[in-house]
Amino acid sequence: MQNDDFFRPVSGFDLPRYAGVPTFMRLPHVGLDDPRLARVQVGLIGAPWDGGTTNRPGPRHGPRQLRDLSTMIRAENGITGVRPFEAVRCADLGDVAPNPADLMDTLKRMEAFYTRVRAAGILPLTAGGDHLCTLPILRALAKDRPLGMIHFDSHTDLFHSYFGGTMYTHGTPFRRAVEEGLLDPHRVCMIGIRGTAYDREDRDFARSVGIRIIPIEEFHARGPEDVMAEARGIAGTGETYVSYDIDFIDPAFAPGTGTPEVGGPNSWQALLVARLLKGVNIVGADLVEVSPPFDASGGTAFLGVSVMFEMLCVIAETLAAKGITE
Amino acid sequence: MQNDDFFRPVSGFDLPRYAGVPTFMRLPHVGLDDPRLARVQVGLIGAPWDGGTTNRPGPRHGPRQLRDLSTMIRAENGITGVRPFEAVRCADLGDVAPNPADLMDTLKRMEAFYTRVRAAGILPLTAGGDHLCTLPILRALAKDRPLGMIHFDSHTDLFHSYFGGTMYTHGTPFRRAVEEGLLDPHRVCMIGIRGTAYDREDRDFARSVGIRIIPIEEFHARGPEDVMAEARGIAGTGETYVSYDIDFIDPAFAPGTGTPEVGGPNSWQALLVARLLKGVNIVGADLVEVSPPFDASGGTAFLGVSVMFEMLCVIAETLAAKGITE
Amino acid sequence: MQNDDFFRPVSGFDLPRYAGVPTFMRLPHVGLDDPRLARVQVGLIGAPWDGGTTNRPGPRHGPRQLRDLSTMIRAENGITGVRPFEAVRCADLGDVAPNPADLMDTLKRMEAFYTRVRAAGILPLTAGGDHLCTLPILRALAKDRPLGMIHFDSHTDLFHSYFGGTMYTHGTPFRRAVEEGLLDPHRVCMIGIRGTAYDREDRDFARSVGIRIIPIEEFHARGPEDVMAEARGIAGTGETYVSYDIDFIDPAFAPGTGTPEVGGPNSWQALLVARLLKGVNIVGADLVEVSPPFDASGGTAFLGVSVMFEMLCVIAETLAAKGITE
Amino acid sequence: MQNDDFFRPVSGFDLPRYAGVPTFMRLPHVGLDDPRLARVQVGLIGAPWDGGTTNRPGPRHGPRQLRDLSTMIRAENGITGVRPFEAVRCADLGDVAPNPADLMDTLKRMEAFYTRVRAAGILPLTAGGDHLCTLPILRALAKDRPLGMIHFDSHTDLFHSYFGGTMYTHGTPFRRAVEEGLLDPHRVCMIGIRGTAYDREDRDFARSVGIRIIPIEEFHARGPEDVMAEARGIAGTGETYVSYDIDFIDPAFAPGTGTPEVGGPNSWQALLVARLLKGVNIVGADLVEVSPPFDASGGTAFLGVSVMFEMLCVIAETLAAKGITE
Amino acid sequence: MQNDDFFRPVSGFDLPRYAGVPTFMRLPHVGLDDPRLARVQVGLIGAPWDGGTTNRPGPRHGPRQLRDLSTMIRAENGITGVRPFEAVRCADLGDVAPNPADLMDTLKRMEAFYTRVRAAGILPLTAGGDHLCTLPILRALAKDRPLGMIHFDSHTDLFHSYFGGTMYTHGTPFRRAVEEGLLDPHRVCMIGIRGTAYDREDRDFARSVGIRIIPIEEFHARGPEDVMAEARGIAGTGETYVSYDIDFIDPAFAPGTGTPEVGGPNSWQALLVARLLKGVNIVGADLVEVSPPFDASGGTAFLGVSVMFEMLCVIAETLAAKGITE
Amino acid sequence: MQNDDFFRPVSGFDLPRYAGVPTFMRLPHVGLDDPRLARVQVGLIGAPWDGGTTNRPGPRHGPRQLRDLSTMIRAENGITGVRPFEAVRCADLGDVAPNPADLMDTLKRMEAFYTRVRAAGILPLTAGGDHLCTLPILRALAKDRPLGMIHFDSHTDLFHSYFGGTMYTHGTPFRRAVEEGLLDPHRVCMIGIRGTAYDREDRDFARSVGIRIIPIEEFHARGPEDVMAEARGIAGTGETYVSYDIDFIDPAFAPGTGTPEVGGPNSWQALLVARLLKGVNIVGADLVEVSPPFDASGGTAFLGVSVMFEMLCVIAETLAAKGITE
Repeated sequence: MQNDDFFRPVSGFDLPRYAGVPTFMRLPHVGLDDPRLARVQVGLIGAPWDGGTTNRPGPRHGPRQLRDLSTMIRAENGITGVRPFEAVRCADLGDVAPNPADLMDTLKRMEAFYTRVRAAGILPLTAGGDHLCTLPILRALAKDRPLGMIHFDSHTDLFHSYFGGTMYTHGTPFRRAVEEGLLDPHRVCMIGIRGTAYDREDRDFARSVGIRIIPIEEFHARGPEDVMAEARGIAGTGETYVSYDIDFIDPAFAPGTGTPEVGGPNSWQALLVARLLKGVNIVGADLVEVSPPFDASGGTAFLGVSVMFEMLCVIAETLAAKGITE
Repeated sequence: MQNDDFFRPVSGFDLPRYAGVPTFMRLPHVGLDDPRLARVQVGLIGAPWDGGTTNRPGPRHGPRQLRDLSTMIRAENGITGVRPFEAVRCADLGDVAPNPADLMDTLKRMEAFYTRVRAAGILPLTAGGDHLCTLPILRALAKDRPLGMIHFDSHTDLFHSYFGGTMYTHGTPFRRAVEEGLLDPHRVCMIGIRGTAYDREDRDFARSVGIRIIPIEEFHARGPEDVMAEARGIAGTGETYVSYDIDFIDPAFAPGTGTPEVGGPNSWQALLVARLLKGVNIVGADLVEVSPPFDASGGTAFLGVSVMFEMLCVIAETLAAKGITE
Repeated sequence: MQNDDFFRPVSGFDLPRYAGVPTFMRLPHVGLDDPRLARVQVGLIGAPWDGGTTNRPGPRHGPRQLRDLSTMIRAENGITGVRPFEAVRCADLGDVAPNPADLMDTLKRMEAFYTRVRAAGILPLTAGGDHLCTLPILRALAKDRPLGMIHFDSHTDLFHSYFGGTMYTHGTPFRRAVEEGLLDPHRVCMIGIRGTAYDREDRDFARSVGIRIIPIEEFHARGPEDVMAEARGIAGTGETYVSYDIDFIDPAFAPGTGTPEVGGPNSWQALLVARLLKGVNIVGADLVEVSPPFDASGGTAFLGVSVMFEMLCVIAETLAAKGITE
Repeated sequence: MQNDDFFRPVSGFDLPRYAGVPTFMRLPHVGLDDPRLARVQVGLIGAPWDGGTTNRPGPRHGPRQLRDLSTMIRAENGITGVRPFEAVRCADLGDVAPNPADLMDTLKRMEAFYTRVRAAGILPLTAGGDHLCTLPILRALAKDRPLGMIHFDSHTDLFHSYFGGTMYTHGTPFRRAVEEGLLDPHRVCMIGIRGTAYDREDRDFARSVGIRIIPIEEFHARGPEDVMAEARGIAGTGETYVSYDIDFIDPAFAPGTGTPEVGGPNSWQALLVARLLKGVNIVGADLVEVSPPFDASGGTAFLGVSVMFEMLCVIAETLAAKGITE
Repeated sequence: MQNDDFFRPVSGFDLPRYAGVPTFMRLPHVGLDDPRLARVQVGLIGAPWDGGTTNRPGPRHGPRQLRDLSTMIRAENGITGVRPFEAVRCADLGDVAPNPADLMDTLKRMEAFYTRVRAAGILPLTAGGDHLCTLPILRALAKDRPLGMIHFDSHTDLFHSYFGGTMYTHGTPFRRAVEEGLLDPHRVCMIGIRGTAYDREDRDFARSVGIRIIPIEEFHARGPEDVMAEARGIAGTGETYVSYDIDFIDPAFAPGTGTPEVGGPNSWQALLVARLLKGVNIVGADLVEVSPPFDASGGTAFLGVSVMFEMLCVIAETLAAKGITE
Repeated sequence: MQNDDFFRPVSGFDLPRYAGVPTFMRLPHVGLDDPRLARVQVGLIGAPWDGGTTNRPGPRHGPRQLRDLSTMIRAENGITGVRPFEAVRCADLGDVAPNPADLMDTLKRMEAFYTRVRAAGILPLTAGGDHLCTLPILRALAKDRPLGMIHFDSHTDLFHSYFGGTMYTHGTPFRRAVEEGLLDPHRVCMIGIRGTAYDREDRDFARSVGIRIIPIEEFHARGPEDVMAEARGIAGTGETYVSYDIDFIDPAFAPGTGTPEVGGPNSWQALLVARLLKGVNIVGADLVEVSPPFDASGGTAFLGVSVMFEMLCVIAETLAAKGITE
């Protein structure tokens, strides 16, 4: 167990949860140039960018609202009993600086940021941002070998291009990632896919490269436990990235997103699938597409950070099991 | 398959979904005087009227918000694979013009409009408006013989009168329809009925004429598949109208309605019951009581158009099966 | 059956439900000094106070919004057929006057109010207010012997103190109640507990005194019927208080509360557990923590009064069964 | 000065302003059948009806929200020092019961209600409701001789008919009132008229019968004091009705209304014109077209009740000056 | 006067204003490929793009909300008496199709669209979109000679670049336009400039090239009439573009925008400056930066279309005066 | 001029304004235990407490929302040209930790915090919190001699007590401050007082001790410049505190507050009075009563921080003039 008081979140008994400068989960803010960076094990990072959004924008505001609501999170997982901030040293690494008016420049800025994070030996847990943010993260994390991926979403994000040839949007990141060798398609599982479709080009591609898609009707029929057992099997013991699009969840529970699809999982299932990641060899994770303009009340962001906390608990257990917490 | 490009919706790859003049599902707008009316098979129609509302008004704004959100609908049903706009020629026929300050005049205007639609051989799929809108539609469609009906709602709308003798409100349309011989009560099934009650007058009437009511506790106990099998059996092979009140769905999923009742189906079940209409001989359908003032965000309208799309897919398959798509 | 027209709610057929001065469930307003108080059997009371709130305030506005939405409630329980206003004489007793700037003074004011209510032989059904409101109610109702309690919540509210020694907050009422002998811990059952935790001090205390906690994962695994059977067994035949914190329900269904926890029961389950109180010897009940600033639309309040109505129906049946309705 | 404690509003020092059953300005609720009606001098009445609304509905909810916000009003006019509740006996007479689905029936119900109010010698101060509500009020108050009127609005409401012959809408009440001899057009002044126009039919009619219209550009050029001096001159010493449509005020200050017109007076001017009614022989007044669905926050209603309080202060002074306060 | 019924907006007396497919001001929708395009004189165009936004996005949704609220506009200017739709043939030309994920591609698409509009002899009145939209419009309209410009805004939009060299953002369009010779800086007047500043680079540039900036303190001191007289003088008799950023107006009146600055003009002044454009030789105009996510109620959009209507009235008078209406 | 890069706010050209951990005006966060505290000259402090609120709560959330919106503030005052962050070293000192459930404890905590701030030689600029927060600040700053005060508000906050003897509420701070000798009443000026009144006890007290009240009608009649000249004269050259209650401003401009009073100054006047503080010998200032639950959009908070920035510019000039910037 880490015993470094610097990395302990502010308690609600010392300062009420609604008060104080809001960092992720009330952790210390440690910028990339801060000398304490070397001691960080898990870095919570904001990616305030939605330049790949083809429909209704807003996820660029996600990190701020997620930070705000994350101050409602306490020290211990009520069900598993994990106390992640005692198990590993976590910090808020701040936001990646995007260039809102230049997509290609931002992809480079983000890749450079995460390359530094990886070089520091820090496992990144990212709050998006739209789903295109995941591409530069994968470029930084998977430069040298492909990763597996467990992907919660209502969309595959596997399209070839939009608007007559535009290759980089929030609907294409995983097509690019497969093409670039960042993902091993046989170790990729996509869960919750639903909604009306343009066509079947994305799903045809998935089949052709070996990506496993579990559509929503199968999810509802089999239930979270069974589905997650399969997903863990697909990911195997290799290094795996977890990408969680908030629109995986039904919009009654998570209205704050730009491309909702009705008929999805409820909040209990949304947490449960994250808890059932236990045992996966996670090397990075994200929660993307929270769009505050569509949910001023912050309910979506609160559910989002609750999912992040579940993922963080699994990550903390995994790191502890690896014996690398000190 | 119809191959008339005029009737193809605008693709999100050509014009982003949030852009453009919003017609229903991005279909062409074909007014009743338009020469292309003759080629339309399914007409999406707005009924912007809530003159029968005894409680909290707003459904008059339903068609505009439903049109707005309907631009999020794409070409293909993700689960059944049906592509309705290729199977049949669909168009937005515009709105019926109500007289907001004269109830009886509006009933006549609406009946006249739908009489023209029927005369043109067009199957109407209506976006309300409150539930009184269904009465003049039935008067136009069932003038010559009674129809069966599958009715999703939390209320029976079978009351005799309100306020000491007022016969036309959104709580009375199906009492009138039975009295006028527009519905064959033995082929009517009402699903999802719940909430507190004034008294049992409506349910006593149902029993006395042979209408089958499946209350919510039975729905939750048996599940959508079983309930819909019974409903399809009641409707039989005869011509059937489908009337879907958005307050059938739990208000967490569909808050935008004037007389919500808690404890209802979730969004997955809401879509599923529409999908399970497959095989019913539908001659018209509606989605009513969406009240935008109670859901400025549009989440209710999006769920509403998603239900409409499911109904449209069933209708398209049925028309195709009848071999009348050309 | 009571046949006192004075105590009959205004019907929506006489005055539309959105109209009129809003009292609880459109009942007559009978203040504590009103001579008609002597005939009241069940008193609906507002406790507009949130002085114990350590996080996000607002429940002080609960009673007004609950009254507003309660005018949507009709005369009869759609499922059980109970007509509570005919079974017992109910009235709106108005609000307890709090002192928003003096916590200890308010505790005394509330205890004094409920002592008068009890002295008048009236069973109180309270609309909070935050959960600290329950403490002075218990002080008035359980002065002479401990009560059992069935408690729906996502938090135990069993903490010792906050902020370095503050003994009275909405997180401590039941710790105080056990210490003061107002509750018999072996007859207390807490259902739905969940969310992240500071530590296990509250649950350790529960175990040490014999309080039964049914956490949310157990609730989801066993289902409402099984859980409520156990709860009824724990309460037994003795006098029992029912305390229902709206944050028991998932925030998608009840966003209007200050300390939501995701992953909770849906609206159908929320009503069902109240209906399954049938047979419990209820001597008082409350619905607390409805916070209108977090749900301007009133959906939370409507669900809240729907739960209150279910509790009222059970109470009415119980009182009738006791033969004390006249 | 009246010294009848029954008619004194509840003080915010006794019960916080947000608490308690919300009656108009925390006055006692005295129904038309209450024996205390005989002692009431000024009756605050809700008219929860918007059956004449041709555009966006909602004013039927006005009385409830106005009551809610009216609890923020205290005892004394900060500028004039008038304490109206001490000067005259005021009460909340409740709501007129409309028939939301029958316009002609509602006109009769309202006329009957106000006829009883007038018969009881009570001066009515009404909270609408849409502007058609003013017609039945005038029918009751002006049965025997025409009244003068000072009318604040952005619309003249002088149209002949809508939708091809519909005579009763919220755009026609004063055309009807002039035709029926309820208003003396030479003693009518309309202030603040603006916005785009269908045509000039309404203004041509005004000119032809002698109604004085002060359009917004003249209001801005001359200022409230000068305009009101003219208005008082037009009304003269005869009996005069005051009708205040909330859309007189700029929608930045009063967004909660169905047919806003930009470019109007600010809140200071909105209060000032009411204060400058001093000296007018007012026999009745109303504040109409507050539509809560367009302003959930209640800011419009608060401004509305602030205007009502200013009118009430002028009325109280006038009644006191007439020596009829006892 | 044009007497082509096709170009007449739908009247609110025929179809209520809240009903029907919402085109700009209820005009006919005439796409660029429609044969009737040749008869259009003024084209209302949506530019649903905010790719240049460096701060809070949303203006891409502007055209749809502006269309929606524009149905509240009637036929005649209440103050000037102008009836623009009778004076000139107006139509809704639909939306320019942007590429939300490719800034440079969108600039080309927009320039091409407006080049076709200009070639058709149509004067464009555009609803944005962010302020970068004005650049490709100017490229199409001012290809062959520089225009004058009257610019209402709280920002100069004259910066050189952002984020270390990004040349195309909504803060740079007029710097580019001057550099490219699209504007004659001596005929450019910017009105309402205010707010905190990064530095004085933009204002230094303005001074160096001869652009006249009238900051807000001068506007408040001199008043709209005096300021507009100077602006008209600066524009002179030459061809002039009018660009109206909604953030010119105080955010209390127009909250729906991404970079508001407090302390601005009120709604009356906002309309008045547009009306005072009379006499300017306008060849194109726009209303930009309406951001619906920041004003779900639509109040900002309604003020925006009211400003557009004032500009349209001036344009119609000018075209009529030129004798080119037929 | 200070030339310490550490104290320079993050530029919007480096990191977009919506991004990053939100501190006040993007300044560095320097806690009271931070060694850099010694170099801070002006400390921006959050006081997240509303325990003195007698009506509608919410200001405890003020500091967080004010920090969020303060990231929209840039480096330079557009009108005066002052660049405060270059003139003096400013920092965000974080929030005072309140005890939400213990009023007297919180008063002590706050006094202790500000005593440390004063001991460090830092001028505090506070973001509230309700108006009771000003009392412990004055206790810390004025321990040894009374201060003058310029007070912008719609209420005097001079009442003796509430609810039968409660001495500490947000309506009593300045009564206590005068009694305790913290304020020199002859150097106190209160501006903007308005709204309905309980009675005249507060104003009688003001008169009796020599406090000057400028009510709103006088403010509107004389204008900001004249009123502020008088206020500066009253404060004189002595040390003066500035307390700015956001409800001084009209609620159309600042709806986010718990006790609004209509008819107040507009946003331009709200900024102007702050700018006209130039020359006053300010030793501390606050902006209180911003209540986010009443303005989720943040418009009130943005106006609030704009006022804070104006006050900060005046303070910076004063400190610079005193020659103490290094």
